[in-house]
Amino acid sequence: MSEELARGLEGVTVAETRLSRIDGENGDLIVAGFPIEELAPNATFEEVLFLLHEDRLPTRDELDAFRTDLASRRAVADEAIATVRRAADEGQDAMDALRMGIAAATLGRDHEEDPREDALDAVAKMPTLAAAYKRATEGKEPVEPRTDLRHAANYLHLLTGEDPNEAAARGLETYLNTVVDHGLNASTFTARTIVSTESDVVSAVTGAVGALKGPLHGGAPGPVLDMIEEAHERGEPEKVLREELDEGKRLMGFGHRVYKTRDPRAAVLENAAKSFYEGEGSAFFESARETERVGVELLAERKPDLNLSTNVEFYTAVLLRGVGVPRNLFSPTFAVGRSAGWTAHCLEQLEDNRLIRPRSRYVGGEDRTWTAVEDRE
Amino acid sequence: MSEELARGLEGVTVAETRLSRIDGENGDLIVAGFPIEELAPNATFEEVLFLLHEDRLPTRDELDAFRTDLASRRAVADEAIATVRRAADEGQDAMDALRMGIAAATLGRDHEEDPREDALDAVAKMPTLAAAYKRATEGKEPVEPRTDLRHAANYLHLLTGEDPNEAAARGLETYLNTVVDHGLNASTFTARTIVSTESDVVSAVTGAVGALKGPLHGGAPGPVLDMIEEAHERGEPEKVLREELDEGKRLMGFGHRVYKTRDPRAAVLENAAKSFYEGEGSAFFESARETERVGVELLAERKPDLNLSTNVEFYTAVLLRGVGVPRNLFSPTFAVGRSAGWTAHCLEQLEDNRLIRPRSRYVGGEDRTWTAVEDRE
Repeated sequence: MSEELARGLEGVTVAETRLSRIDGENGDLIVAGFPIEELAPNATFEEVLFLLHEDRLPTRDELDAFRTDLASRRAVADEAIATVRRAADEGQDAMDALRMGIAAATLGRDHEEDPREDALDAVAKMPTLAAAYKRATEGKEPVEPRTDLRHAANYLHLLTGEDPNEAAARGLETYLNTVVDHGLNASTFTARTIVSTESDVVSAVTGAVGALKGPLHGGAPGPVLDMIEEAHERGEPEKVLREELDEGKRLMGFGHRVYKTRDPRAAVLENAAKSFYEGEGSAFFESARETERVGVELLAERKPDLNLSTNVEFYTAVLLRGVGVPRNLFSPTFAVGRSAGWTAHCLEQLEDNRLIRPRSRYVGGEDRTWTAVEDRE
Repeated sequence: MSEELARGLEGVTVAETRLSRIDGENGDLIVAGFPIEELAPNATFEEVLFLLHEDRLPTRDELDAFRTDLASRRAVADEAIATVRRAADEGQDAMDALRMGIAAATLGRDHEEDPREDALDAVAKMPTLAAAYKRATEGKEPVEPRTDLRHAANYLHLLTGEDPNEAAARGLETYLNTVVDHGLNASTFTARTIVSTESDVVSAVTGAVGALKGPLHGGAPGPVLDMIEEAHERGEPEKVLREELDEGKRLMGFGHRVYKTRDPRAAVLENAAKSFYEGEGSAFFESARETERVGVELLAERKPDLNLSTNVEFYTAVLLRGVGVPRNLFSPTFAVGRSAGWTAHCLEQLEDNRLIRPRSRYVGGEDRTWTAVEDRE
């Protein structure tokens, strides 16, 4: 009974993975061997998904076949869509809706349960479900998925019903690639734990969506956007941020449990946002940059010990706003990207599986004896 | 990079709990301070659920109010039922259907997200979902929940549409109580991990259902029943079991990772089955007992080092068959009971929460450089 208690499992290494490596000291993120800044802006989402599942980039022919296969899996059963739409009608959170929809992603499948097929189904259907929720909140019918578009472009099409703009699709694609995997975070660990019972990959992804919903995990790019928009509209970032801090509020978009430097994903997303906002949106982008500069400066002044740098959420908010993802879809869009990592971790876990089953220590009552309800005071 | 790898988290203590204690050496199971053999046959399921959530037994008034409250939460939204029914129509596994249904258990709720309310919703709706699946496999419409019946009796009513027999309801209730909690098994740990992100309890229970589905977790009382039925029909348990072993098969219903003795739950379920089968079913019950006796004897003879005793699945199969739960509902019925423990663990985790986030060790590629698809060979 004297063994150590590892409540958060901090420092406990539970898996070997070839999927990603975080170097918090130096601010590096490697995804399947590639620095994130090299992979995310260059690759299509389909290439990154193939890379995570297969540990190599596809050839032209493989990529074409993979895209076609993935695109063929986008449709979602009416019953699943109905749960998502009702959740939207009732004002439930987008992540609740996504949980319902993805849990039912096995409906209508044309294959037996199979880790690889289930993985592709789950990834392919995430945008369909997220977009169905968004359309329902606007009182609109869902849009049919298009098989001629890439994953990211199709997602934009599903959100708007329109032909997606190529620059927006590329911006969204870079975002999805940037968040595709990030070590054993709580949702990824949840997925590995579920599949370690030899359960199926859709069950694992469903659990992961539930974990990602939690505010201690999923983060809060929504409030970051509020802050930047206020700074932009009032034209006085420093004043806005000083007011926040004077009111005792935390500045959102800064600081990370692992990174001691600027989150490497921030740079990737900043560059993607810069490309996207060139021209008409550049004033907003410059406000965001100024807000970042002022935020880092003020935090260094007021909380010098904490070493708070820009995290992934800051430019997530800027970029997703630009490409047209509404803020109530920020978390589901994170899940659209991260589902690639979740499924890859499931396949990796199953390659050499061991049931994940820790211990608990009993601290409850002892030697209680039963009394019938009539005899209880 | 040299830290130890704890792939299955064996021996890693991740939580303190007042919910259950397993003593594998002595074959004891304590649930919230009560030996399982004292609690399970005496308590109603509602009393056990109250005990797990509140760490004490309810008074008469509290119990009446708790029952009424729980019963009022049994109805499930049509959209959730529709996913379950389609899963049944497509021949999907009952646990897939349960995952879909419980994921959508927040639909139609009349309260904000709240751990305690969500916990009661999830527990209350499990029988409704499991029974809707069973009815659909028989081409029948779901039965309306009855609020005048206890949890276990209502579940039987939902399965059959008939007034439940009191002996069967008591037998089922003892089963549900017996499996209500069992340390940090993989599904319970999944629930705690999900809720540790401060996500909601329905998301946690949904993940737990996914984990329980896995064959390394949920167990296999179905094959146990096949074996006992064959032994009973042929009237020659020893011959049936010898044949199984001679064919190199494992005898199902014996052996457990934790218990070195007879699983204490086996005795509780054996006694419940004995009471239930008295009279017309006693011949079957005697065949089961003889099968157990022969099984233990043969395993001691052939695998003396393994010390294989009867596990919980053996008399689960006998008891559930008796009370009228069909074998494709064995796992969902396990989930009906275990949901009490899952939700209690969620509430306990949230009382003093810490995010559960272990580490991984990177073993993948290094220094890969991007090549455009045209340039790959």
